[in-house]
Amino acid sequence: MKNNKVQPSILPGFMELLPKEQQIFRDMVRKITNVYEQNGFLEMDTPIIEKSEVLLAKSAGETEKQVYRFNRGSNDLSLRFDLTVPFARFSAQYFNELTFPFKRYQIGKVYRGERNQRGRYREFYQCDIDIIGNNKLSVNNDALVISMVSKGFKAIGLKDYKFQISNRKILSAILKDLEIINAIEVMGLIDKYDKIGKEEFLNSLVELVGQEKADVINKAININGSNEEIMKQLRELAMNSEEFEKGLEELSVVRNMLKIFGVEEDEYVINIKIIRGLDYYTGTVFETFLTGNEGYGSICSGGRYDNLAQNYTDNILPGVGISIGLTRLFFVLKEIGFLKDYKVEKSIEYLIIPIGDTLEYCAEVYNGLLRKGKYAEIYLEDDKLKKKLNYANKLGIPNVILIGEDEVLNKQVKIKDMVSGEETIVGAED
Amino acid sequence: MKNNKVQPSILPGFMELLPKEQQIFRDMVRKITNVYEQNGFLEMDTPIIEKSEVLLAKSAGETEKQVYRFNRGSNDLSLRFDLTVPFARFSAQYFNELTFPFKRYQIGKVYRGERNQRGRYREFYQCDIDIIGNNKLSVNNDALVISMVSKGFKAIGLKDYKFQISNRKILSAILKDLEIINAIEVMGLIDKYDKIGKEEFLNSLVELVGQEKADVINKAININGSNEEIMKQLRELAMNSEEFEKGLEELSVVRNMLKIFGVEEDEYVINIKIIRGLDYYTGTVFETFLTGNEGYGSICSGGRYDNLAQNYTDNILPGVGISIGLTRLFFVLKEIGFLKDYKVEKSIEYLIIPIGDTLEYCAEVYNGLLRKGKYAEIYLEDDKLKKKLNYANKLGIPNVILIGEDEVLNKQVKIKDMVSGEETIVGAED
Repeated sequence: MKNNKVQPSILPGFMELLPKEQQIFRDMVRKITNVYEQNGFLEMDTPIIEKSEVLLAKSAGETEKQVYRFNRGSNDLSLRFDLTVPFARFSAQYFNELTFPFKRYQIGKVYRGERNQRGRYREFYQCDIDIIGNNKLSVNNDALVISMVSKGFKAIGLKDYKFQISNRKILSAILKDLEIINAIEVMGLIDKYDKIGKEEFLNSLVELVGQEKADVINKAININGSNEEIMKQLRELAMNSEEFEKGLEELSVVRNMLKIFGVEEDEYVINIKIIRGLDYYTGTVFETFLTGNEGYGSICSGGRYDNLAQNYTDNILPGVGISIGLTRLFFVLKEIGFLKDYKVEKSIEYLIIPIGDTLEYCAEVYNGLLRKGKYAEIYLEDDKLKKKLNYANKLGIPNVILIGEDEVLNKQVKIKDMVSGEETIVGAED
Repeated sequence: MKNNKVQPSILPGFMELLPKEQQIFRDMVRKITNVYEQNGFLEMDTPIIEKSEVLLAKSAGETEKQVYRFNRGSNDLSLRFDLTVPFARFSAQYFNELTFPFKRYQIGKVYRGERNQRGRYREFYQCDIDIIGNNKLSVNNDALVISMVSKGFKAIGLKDYKFQISNRKILSAILKDLEIINAIEVMGLIDKYDKIGKEEFLNSLVELVGQEKADVINKAININGSNEEIMKQLRELAMNSEEFEKGLEELSVVRNMLKIFGVEEDEYVINIKIIRGLDYYTGTVFETFLTGNEGYGSICSGGRYDNLAQNYTDNILPGVGISIGLTRLFFVLKEIGFLKDYKVEKSIEYLIIPIGDTLEYCAEVYNGLLRKGKYAEIYLEDDKLKKKLNYANKLGIPNVILIGEDEVLNKQVKIKDMVSGEETIVGAED
C-alpha cells in the first residue's frame, strides 16, 4: 500500500502558509483593503488566464520569458504576470461603463517563472491601487495613493518604512540640459545605483558621459538633507527648462498634499535617483524601503503614467498607481521578526467543552456567544478532557468554557483562562 | 494608430464583474467567510498551479479531460480543478503541524475546461469548508458544516433555499437487501433521477433490476412527507441490516444536531435519492436547491468521507465537507433578480466637493470622517460642479458635502442628500 502513495509536495517557488501565519496574512490583507475601500477604491477582479495576444500586446521584455504561456485547443493562453496589464485591458474594454476618475484596487495572484531563489516567488500576491482619469488627472492623486499605503501600513502596525519619492521630469530635464544623448542608458545606470554601489556607478557614468558631465549628474542625484533642504537645492539648480520647472512644481504639490492627507514629513524622503524602469512612468515615482532593512529592496512601488491603455484603445487614460508585493512583503516581515508580535484582530476567543452529556446546553451557550458577535467553537469529539484542553492550547484559544452536568443544573458555566489557569464560575449570561 | 490596437477582451467562459456587482460579490464572500471564521474554521490558501502527478494522483475521471495541464521546462503542471485535492495534499504534507479536528475553509479560483455554455464557467470560485479528524470524527460535525452554510446564507439575506439530506448507507443497505449486483449502476441512475425524469428513470431501473425490485427501490426513494414522517417510514422498512441501522442512526443524530445548531426544520428535507457521485462519500450527503429555481441545480453540496488523503499518506483522515460554487451561485442569484435589492454593508457615504480654493479645509473634514470610521472621498479634479455631482450620482454616493469659501470662514459644511436633493448646513463636527 505504502508504495502507491504520491509524495505530497508543492512546486518550488510557491508560498503556502500554515494556519497561524495564514491568519496573519489574511488580517493584513483585510486591514489594507479596508483602508482602500474606506477611501472609495472599488475592487476589480480579473481572470488569471487571458489571451496571450492581449496580455502581451506590449512586448513585456525581460518579463515575457517568465510568462507561463501554453496552448489549449486553438487558444494561446497566458497567466497574468502583473495586475497592471489586466487593468489596462479592463479600462479599455468597459470604458463606457466606468465612472472617471476611476479608483480601483485589486488583489490577486500573478505568475512569473523567476529563477528559484530565497524570497523570490513564482506565484505571488500583488495588491494594487490606481486612479485613472479620462484625458486628465490632477497631481493631487499622486499624493493620495501614497497616503493610502501609509494608512494601510499604519493599520497593520508597520512603522519602520520610508517612501522614496521623485519626479522623473527633474532628472530628465537635467540630462537634457547637459545634452546627454544616451539618456536612456544613463537613467538605466542611475536606476541600478544602489545595486552596483557608488564606485562602480561613477566609473560607468564617466564612461558613458565623460568626467565633467558625470560630476554634475552625480552631484545632482546625491543632493541630500531634509526634504525642505532638498527642494531648496533643487530649486537652486534653476535650469531654464519648462520640464524641470514642471517636475519641481509637481513634486511641490505632492509634498503639500501628502501633508494634507496625513503623511508625516519623516515617512518619506525625496530622492531623484528613483526611476522605476525605463519607459512607463512620466512624473511622480516612488519606492518604499524598510528602514534598517533596505537590502530587501522596495516593498511597494509605483508612479504616474500618461496613458494606461494605449495598446487597447484611443482613449487617453492618464493615471497613478502603487503596488504592494504582498507575498514578498510577508516573507520579509517574517524574516525581520515583525510577525512574532503581530496581533490578529479576530480569532477564536472561547472553546466550549462539554463534559458528560451536556451538548445541548453547550450549544445554547455557544449560540448566545455567537449572537453577541463572539468567536467561539464547541469541542464535538468524545475525547479525554486533557485532549480537549490541548486543542485550545495548540490553537492559542485564550478561554475554555467547561460545562458538566452541575453547570447545566445551576445554569452556570465554568470559564478557564488558559494563560493563568484560573477558573471562574459565572451565570449563563456570561 | 488605430490599427495597432489589440481588441480588449477576455476568454469565453470567464466571469468578470463591473464595480457595482463586484462590490456585491465581495460583500457576500466577506459575510460567508466571517461566519466560518467566527466558528473556528481556519483559512487555507494553496497554489493554483501544482504538480500534475500530485493533483491527478487519483484519476480524476471525466474531470481529467477538463484539467488545464501544460509543461514548463521539465515540469508537468496542472491548474487545480477543485479545492478538495489540494486540501488532501496539504493535510498529508503538514500532518504533524496541524491540530485535529482540523477545521478549514478555503476560497479560491479553480479551473475546468468545460464546454462553453451559459452559466458554466471555466474559471470559478469555490468556497469550501471541511472538518477532518485524526482517525475518527463524530457525526456531530456533519450537522455543523450544514449549519455553517445556513448561517452564511442568512448573513447574505438568502432565504429561499432547501438542503436535501441523505445518508448513503441507507440506500446502500436497501440495495444490498435486495441482492442487487449492479448497485453502482443503480446508484448512478438514481443520481440522475431529477435530470432524466420519473418515466425514463423507471424504465431504465426495470431494465437494470427487473420489475419487482424496481418497485421496491422506487417506493423507498420516493418516501415523502415531513422529515418526521420520512424518518418514521424509513424506520418501518426495518431491514435486518447493520448498515441500514447505522445510516438511520447517523441521520437521526444529524437531525438532532441541526436543531441544536439553529437550522430550522423547514430549511431541509430528507431525500434518499441524494447520492453525490459514486465513490467518495460514505455517509451523510447533501445538496442545496433554491426553492422555485431547482432547475439551476445544486448550489452547494458535500458530505462525509472515510479517508481524505489516502493517495498521499497512511494516516486515516475521515471528514465532512461542503462546497459552495460561488461564481455559479452569483450567476444564478443575478438571474433570479436577487442582486437587485442586495444591500452592501459598506460603501462610500460621503463625497466631499471643494468649491474654489478650499481643498485644505476639505481634507480636514475628510480626515475627521475617516477617524469616525466613515467611508468618504474627496473630489480632487478641477471640474465643473455639475460633473462633480454627477460622479456622486453615478456611483450612488448618498451624501455630498459641498465646501466653498463661506463654509471655510464659518467652519461649516453644506450637506446635500443626493436622493431628496435637500441641503442642510451643519457645523464642522458633522
